[in-house]
Amino acid sequence: MKFVCDGLDLSDAVLKVVKACATRTTVPVMECIKITARIDSLILTATDGEMTIQKKIKAEIYEEGDVCVPGKYFSDFIKKLEGVQLTIEVNDNKMDIVYADSQTSMQVLGAEDFPNIFVDVNENSFTIATEEFKRLINATTFCCAADDSRPILKGCQLVIKGNEITATALDGFRLATARGTVVGSTSDMEIVCPARTLKEIEKMLPEGEGETQIKVQKGVLLVCVDDTILTSCLYNGDFIKKENIIPKAFITTVTVDRELLKASIERAAILVRGDKNSLIILDISQGKVEISSNSEIGKVNEPVKAELEGKDLKIAMNSKFITDAINALSEDEIVLSFNNSVQPFICENKQNKDVLYLILPVRTSNNA
Amino acid sequence: MKFVCDGLDLSDAVLKVVKACATRTTVPVMECIKITARIDSLILTATDGEMTIQKKIKAEIYEEGDVCVPGKYFSDFIKKLEGVQLTIEVNDNKMDIVYADSQTSMQVLGAEDFPNIFVDVNENSFTIATEEFKRLINATTFCCAADDSRPILKGCQLVIKGNEITATALDGFRLATARGTVVGSTSDMEIVCPARTLKEIEKMLPEGEGETQIKVQKGVLLVCVDDTILTSCLYNGDFIKKENIIPKAFITTVTVDRELLKASIERAAILVRGDKNSLIILDISQGKVEISSNSEIGKVNEPVKAELEGKDLKIAMNSKFITDAINALSEDEIVLSFNNSVQPFICENKQNKDVLYLILPVRTSNNA
Repeated sequence: MKFVCDGLDLSDAVLKVVKACATRTTVPVMECIKITARIDSLILTATDGEMTIQKKIKAEIYEEGDVCVPGKYFSDFIKKLEGVQLTIEVNDNKMDIVYADSQTSMQVLGAEDFPNIFVDVNENSFTIATEEFKRLINATTFCCAADDSRPILKGCQLVIKGNEITATALDGFRLATARGTVVGSTSDMEIVCPARTLKEIEKMLPEGEGETQIKVQKGVLLVCVDDTILTSCLYNGDFIKKENIIPKAFITTVTVDRELLKASIERAAILVRGDKNSLIILDISQGKVEISSNSEIGKVNEPVKAELEGKDLKIAMNSKFITDAINALSEDEIVLSFNNSVQPFICENKQNKDVLYLILPVRTSNNA
Repeated sequence: MKFVCDGLDLSDAVLKVVKACATRTTVPVMECIKITARIDSLILTATDGEMTIQKKIKAEIYEEGDVCVPGKYFSDFIKKLEGVQLTIEVNDNKMDIVYADSQTSMQVLGAEDFPNIFVDVNENSFTIATEEFKRLINATTFCCAADDSRPILKGCQLVIKGNEITATALDGFRLATARGTVVGSTSDMEIVCPARTLKEIEKMLPEGEGETQIKVQKGVLLVCVDDTILTSCLYNGDFIKKENIIPKAFITTVTVDRELLKASIERAAILVRGDKNSLIILDISQGKVEISSNSEIGKVNEPVKAELEGKDLKIAMNSKFITDAINALSEDEIVLSFNNSVQPFICENKQNKDVLYLILPVRTSNNA
């Protein structure tokens, strides 16, 4: 294998694909970038077994071939050669990287053990405005589970029905759901995509107007941006039906200024940040919500003006979950809707109901 | 104790002094900020036993007193109340913080166990252009030792002789020394100041032209910026005499482009970054320096054009130390001067010799 290419082109490609390299694995080839030299191009591929990123660049190929290079070392090294032309030649397990008068080489692995990557995904697809897709990802993926106890909760469910798309994520303590519009789709579909993949897609997609096509086939999702192809396994299994857990009617509904509520909750959270649940209490009555917290450091009690419909209520919750939800909402006024102190409650914008956060309260000795 | 003050004033003061609060201590009062209310002012003080920061602000004092508040919690809380007027009252061990209709309180400690802070430092002093002092700090403190094995090496030596000031730092593997000018001093002096203190002073000093006065008395240093006073213990003991370890004559002297050498060393360092010494080799001969490294990942060998005076030399070193030194130098061309492969060598700018870095090479089986 032998090729000549521009350092900047190679560096740009390597930095894009290296994000899919596995970290902390016992299989060396999974920490590698596979380089394939064919005709007039290089194809770079990295995968962690779940997500794969592949990118094609132009190069002068003198001898075709395949090789696996250590991903992190190779990308850091090539990044420091952006300004020069590189001649790269592989013999046995040694890759010579020649620039100016240098004699540099890197140990490489054969490509035979590198997983076969399936990039012929074409059965189904949907197309969505790029900014709309980013909005849905940012509104929901932060509520995905981070641990492996129920793997499917590490994914975000995307449901396409007609020209409506709904993204839903939950971690057992809270749920986020966001609604949007697709430009078109080959069929209705329901998939659960790893949150990690969606966050990577969000970073990879360009700014500004424009549309993105997402292809889906046999448990694989594929997105293509310029010459970069990202594929990802989808999760199998039953995702929770959000309709079954989002209450339809509420006994207590309160409208409140988002910034004032946020500031009060943040102050209350400071004094309980050492505690396990970071517990704060909302005491809702006519005209106000009192936010309070109590720890060995001290206690906070602040009223925030609010408009109540329905019954008074005192309810305890994890300050992180309510703060995350308030941060993800966007309007000046938001609405919190409750039934009692033990059932989940919801947070929404006052006007635009496209996004909804549901949070499980914390049972305390006072309200259990 | 009772006072009324502006949230922004208090927050600004608290954020300045909290940097001196001890972390990871078993003495709760050392994690506190002491607040003293006297006549028409609040004095806030924090100390970790070595460095102390004190700041005075205006307040309406209704009842004088002293109290200790948990530093980190109090500063984070007050930071979120910048826009409001605060009424603070202490009864027994409870501090009520009143803003709008809130009822917030924090557990506090009495001030009797807080260390006595000595701020009457006046015996000796020197005055230096503020930017000059910052330059000396930035040129040397990164070479101070980070561990406690020889405490005095955690400090930077400042020697004032006439109107010349010399800052010197070393960690057992490398030494930095930088020369500057003072505007004036009450006498010649030699002190060893903790690097942490100097870094904090560097951050605290204002930008631009202007002068700073450093006062010294009985093992204590004091700097005053506006209403903020920083004091610090100085280290006792004999600091190494740099004249004894900086060679006066050299057998091999090489002049090289700083950016080219830096880029080559950075590339060579990537492949050995997993190794203990991060070892790179400079092979110096007529017209060039060859930079090489070798690890199980691969090997680098790059020539950099250079002007040699004296004998050829092959020498091994820790890539971090030489990179730090090159980064701290400023001219396009730098000079490296050696005697042999086991004695310390020096790095300097080609023209301005105010700053000097001395580095101990690494003995390898080839040159030991």
